[in-house]
Amino acid sequence: MSNGILFYTAPTPNGHKVSVFLEELKAAYGLQYDVERIDISKNIQKEPWFIKLNPNGRIPVIVDRSRNNFPVFESAAILLYLQHHYDKENKFAFDKETDSDNWSEMLQWIFFAHGGVGPMQGQANHFNRYAPEDIPYAKKRYIEETKRLYGVLEIRLQERDYLAGPGRGVYSIADMNVIPWVRIHKYAGIESIDEFPRVKAWVDRAVSRPGFQAGINVP
Amino acid sequence: MSNGILFYTAPTPNGHKVSVFLEELKAAYGLQYDVERIDISKNIQKEPWFIKLNPNGRIPVIVDRSRNNFPVFESAAILLYLQHHYDKENKFAFDKETDSDNWSEMLQWIFFAHGGVGPMQGQANHFNRYAPEDIPYAKKRYIEETKRLYGVLEIRLQERDYLAGPGRGVYSIADMNVIPWVRIHKYAGIESIDEFPRVKAWVDRAVSRPGFQAGINVP
Repeated sequence: MSNGILFYTAPTPNGHKVSVFLEELKAAYGLQYDVERIDISKNIQKEPWFIKLNPNGRIPVIVDRSRNNFPVFESAAILLYLQHHYDKENKFAFDKETDSDNWSEMLQWIFFAHGGVGPMQGQANHFNRYAPEDIPYAKKRYIEETKRLYGVLEIRLQERDYLAGPGRGVYSIADMNVIPWVRIHKYAGIESIDEFPRVKAWVDRAVSRPGFQAGINVP
Repeated sequence: MSNGILFYTAPTPNGHKVSVFLEELKAAYGLQYDVERIDISKNIQKEPWFIKLNPNGRIPVIVDRSRNNFPVFESAAILLYLQHHYDKENKFAFDKETDSDNWSEMLQWIFFAHGGVGPMQGQANHFNRYAPEDIPYAKKRYIEETKRLYGVLEIRLQERDYLAGPGRGVYSIADMNVIPWVRIHKYAGIESIDEFPRVKAWVDRAVSRPGFQAGINVP
């Protein structure tokens, strides 16, 4: 097909935020999309054609061929774009105009994850797996900060099943925006999340959804 | 007054994102607000009353006393909340429904800064100023990454005055969300931004605004 969403990605937590939502949209609305896998080990995302789509040179990126090839970068901005255009019944978010407080709470948790969990767990990955030097101070710093942030999620989930929405919450893009990171905590050097039982149950609850399962297998 | 916005903050870049926008809203619409300074050196933001407002224990936070004391945390989520409720003429943003592509581009640059410039420059601050150990690898890593991100802004500003909006762009919350970080690059160990002339001109352009000037003096 040459219409619809073209999705440039790789099997990383930031890529999976978007692939999970695309699969949820496929299950809910029949949305179709095409995937082009970017080999980040070869720095394809730093090539000039990709920099035109995202000057930051990072996956994920989408191009919406149904809307004049509009490009969108930054995982959370992609979730909000897809929700705006392709979740017309607000199954995975809240209406900005008619449900503005839940819309805002959803954004608050999206930014919490985008500025906190992602970058800090990413640094834990770096110092625990990739850094050419063994730097105990940095390893400890980022593992502790990531666990502190999981503790913030634990507080939020005290009387809730999902991060945003009324009552016990509603599964939304706020959850899809952070669970792809939390579910691979071991990769960053955090062996267990048993000390965060509500976080653990919330991850299991989301990951057991067919859409989520399908998403984390893309590409 | 006991109505309107109550703003908990401290003189940091994340605090200044919000104080700049509050001052711009004051200049444009006459919006009034009250400030309560939080002494982060005494960890006031970790006290139970504050954790109820923001479980992450960080400034800035606002409480909207005109809307049932609705609390908002995460600097970028506060900008979007204030814009939604108090910038009714869209002077500082783009309408999500009628101008959805500019709305999305604004969000893309907000997330770029919130997940990139802020966290990475914050780590540069840490290793260059606060860390109890001298770790050259980490100092270099975060200064280089911050400069790389400034380089991405330089690409975006090649034919623009502001990050988002049609033509050469329009001063918006996308700019307010990141300039409070870039303007204090020296603090993070980046002595000069002369190699990013468009970024430098853009910072000067925004900082010369009376609203911006007023904002960076709050508290």
